[in-house]
Amino acid sequence: MQPSSLDELIEALRCLPGVGPKSAQRMAYHLLQRDQRGAARLAGALGHALDVLQHCERCNTFSETEVCQRCANPRRDPALLCIVEMPADLAMIEQTQSYNGLYYVLMGRLSPLDGIGPRELKLDKLIARAADGVVQEVILATNFTNEGEATAHTVASLLAPRGLRISRLSRGVPVGGELEHTDTGTIAQALVERRTV
Amino acid sequence: MQPSSLDELIEALRCLPGVGPKSAQRMAYHLLQRDQRGAARLAGALGHALDVLQHCERCNTFSETEVCQRCANPRRDPALLCIVEMPADLAMIEQTQSYNGLYYVLMGRLSPLDGIGPRELKLDKLIARAADGVVQEVILATNFTNEGEATAHTVASLLAPRGLRISRLSRGVPVGGELEHTDTGTIAQALVERRTV
Ligand SMILES: [Zn+2]
Ligand SMILES: [Zn+2]
Repeated sequence: MQPSSLDELIEALRCLPGVGPKSAQRMAYHLLQRDQRGAARLAGALGHALDVLQHCERCNTFSETEVCQRCANPRRDPALLCIVEMPADLAMIEQTQSYNGLYYVLMGRLSPLDGIGPRELKLDKLIARAADGVVQEVILATNFTNEGEATAHTVASLLAPRGLRISRLSRGVPVGGELEHTDTGTIAQALVERRTV
Repeated sequence: MQPSSLDELIEALRCLPGVGPKSAQRMAYHLLQRDQRGAARLAGALGHALDVLQHCERCNTFSETEVCQRCANPRRDPALLCIVEMPADLAMIEQTQSYNGLYYVLMGRLSPLDGIGPRELKLDKLIARAADGVVQEVILATNFTNEGEATAHTVASLLAPRGLRISRLSRGVPVGGELEHTDTGTIAQALVERRTV
C-alpha cells in the first residue's frame, strides 16, 4: 500500500555500503520529509558524477579528463611511480609534501574472498603503465594489512622481470595499519626509508 | 586536486542522516567504482520520488495521488481516525489486520529541542481533517516515548473542544517502546483496549 516510487527509493538506497532495510527507510523519510533540497542535490551530484567521471588513463584515479591534472603536470618526476590502493591513500601521501613523482591508483586490493583477483584489479593496465620506458622505480604503497601486503607482493612479482627498481614503504607505517589513518609524519618517514624488495 | 564532481558527490551524500565525511567518501568510491548500476538507479529513484510524491490531502502520508488509495477506499470506516507519527507506524497497525478505520500521519512528532512545534507539524491540517463532521473517534497511536506522549497530549487538547471521542492505544505497548519495533499481537491488544482520554 506504500507508493511504488517510495518503495523503489528505499530499495535503491540499499546499494549504499552498510545500509540495511531499516536505515534505508529512515534515509528515505528524512530525504523526502526533512531535506528535499539535499535530496535533489544528491540526485544531481550522483547523476553528474556518473556522467563526467572516468578513470585517468595514466594513473587510473577518478578524473573528469582522459589524463588527470597530476599526470599532466610536467613538474612531477615521471621516473617515480607510487602505487596506492585508493584515492584517499594518494591524498595522504600528497599531504606529506615529500613526494614529487607520479602515482598509480589500483582502486582496490587483491581480495580473493571478495572475488577480486589480478584480472578484476586490471593489473595489466598497471604493468603497461609501469613499462612505459620512463618509469625507473615503482614504490609500493599499498596498505600494510594482509590484503595490501599480498597485493604488493603480487605487483612486485609481476614487475620484477621488467628491470624496474621496486621499493616498498618502510615499516614506519604500523603493521596492520591503514594509510588513511596514519599521521603524515610517519608516512613521510616511511617514504624516506623505503626499501628495495 | 580531486575532481570537483567527486567532491560534490561526497558533500551531497552528507545530507543522509548519520553519514559523516569518512563514510560519505567510502560511499562515493563504492558507488562509482563497484556499483555504478546501483548508483544510477539511486539517482533515478531519488529524482523520481521527488517528482511524483506528495502528501495525501486527507491522511498526510506520502502518496503519488492527491488522495491516497487507502483514504479513497469506501470499505474503510470513515468515523475512525487513527493518528500515527510515521508511515512505518501505519504499516505496523495495518499488519495487525485489526483496524479498519482511516489514518492521519503526522510525519513526525513534537520535538521542541529540534525546533519542531505544533506549527512545524502542521497540526492545523490534522484538526481540519478530524473536524470533517464524519470522524467520530480519534485514536492516538503516537509512540509511547516522551515525545510521542507529549504529542498525543497536545493533539488531545486541541481536539477535545470539537466534541470528538478521543482515545489512546492501551498500555499494551511497552512504556518507552516504539511501534515499529513492537510485535503485532501486542499492538492488536492495545487497539482493543484503547482507553478514552
Ligand atoms: Zn592521472
Ligand atoms: Zn491518505
